Amino acid sequence: MPRIHFQQQLAALKDKLLAMAALAQQALDCSLDAYLKRDELMVDHVHDHETAINAAERSVDEMAYDLLAMEQPMAIDLRFLLAVIKINSDLERIGDQSVNIVERAAELLRHPAVDLPVDLRQMGELTGWMIRVAIQALLDGDAGMARSVLTMDDNVDRINKETHQRLVEVMQTHPEWSEQALNTIIISRNLERIADHATNIAEDVIFWVRGADVRHQFSLAVD
Amino acid sequence: MPRIHFQQQLAALKDKLLAMAALAQQALDCSLDAYLKRDELMVDHVHDHETAINAAERSVDEMAYDLLAMEQPMAIDLRFLLAVIKINSDLERIGDQSVNIVERAAELLRHPAVDLPVDLRQMGELTGWMIRVAIQALLDGDAGMARSVLTMDDNVDRINKETHQRLVEVMQTHPEWSEQALNTIIISRNLERIADHATNIAEDVIFWVRGADVRHQFSLAVD
Repeated sequence: MPRIHFQQQLAALKDKLLAMAALAQQALDCSLDAYLKRDELMVDHVHDHETAINAAERSVDEMAYDLLAMEQPMAIDLRFLLAVIKINSDLERIGDQSVNIVERAAELLRHPAVDLPVDLRQMGELTGWMIRVAIQALLDGDAGMARSVLTMDDNVDRINKETHQRLVEVMQTHPEWSEQALNTIIISRNLERIADHATNIAEDVIFWVRGADVRHQFSLAVD
Repeated sequence: MPRIHFQQQLAALKDKLLAMAALAQQALDCSLDAYLKRDELMVDHVHDHETAINAAERSVDEMAYDLLAMEQPMAIDLRFLLAVIKINSDLERIGDQSVNIVERAAELLRHPAVDLPVDLRQMGELTGWMIRVAIQALLDGDAGMARSVLTMDDNVDRINKETHQRLVEVMQTHPEWSEQALNTIIISRNLERIADHATNIAEDVIFWVRGADVRHQFSLAVD
């Protein structure tokens, strides 16, 4: 197979991965609508999305495996294919976490809305933004952009901790709201996990572009 | 490089992955001790373990990448290398979840022990057993054994749901215990995530042995 054909196939694989990323982002957006707007229609919608995401994951993996098996790519292309396989897996888990969010949102709909002293809208926007920037970094092959995602993750962790603390206080002062507080704590943790997956994606982009493994050593790397 | 040498390197990679699996299992066991026996010493221990796990993860990935780049393996060996890369990632996340458990256990130590109507010992044992069976299936190349892990996951999901329900009731009837109940709910969810990772490992073993992708289609596959 000529080399130019292989480059076309890599480009087609990237397109497939971008479609997968769009599905994962939509799942997150819909799950946040289910929670923030108490929109019951979104619950089924996110479950339907999960089926599409699982099919897209298999399709990306199969194409990446075929290219590895048939083309025996070297160096940068090999790293790109391995990065695609890992990013694909993280996108699928973002879909899973969105289902978790929507299940908690559905549970919240069974209880009266109460005015909790937290706002997950900002956290949700930040998390969605991290996914978008990580994917843009993949598109542009921009390790610097990917690195900015890693610093954002600290903000999400901090918001998650504050949310947890405030809602524990609510549970103690308003035990009748404990279901609402508990489900909101779990949604906050799910968002924090999604931010971790976006961070993994950014690390895989850096691995692809730079050939360096930045996992578990970011604090050293920025010194 | 002669083919026999390549097979020796694959065997060495498998040993490295088994060492990684042992670290992840120890992290889980220690985190459960921290929770079940209220053993404060285990908290630092699991954090130390995490550092070792992260180093082991990098080492496995680097060796797998080198073998992919230099040996250009075909078919079954390629699938094995891809399975190793994915299993490695799941083992690292089991380590992360064990850190989450130990952090909740440390939080529980700051509050008086109370008698909650749940027993996470069985769930912890079941989860540890799932990891062991998945890894044994990898050692033996036994897709049937791997498949048994997938059915166990349903049990863990059920226990997690029951635990959640019972502890929500505790929160409402004993708001003064809400911190203890909340941290226990989160530990139960972490165990459920670890069981999911063991399930992923089992699916990767099946993919390697059978060449079939069983993700998201287990219910069809067992018919």
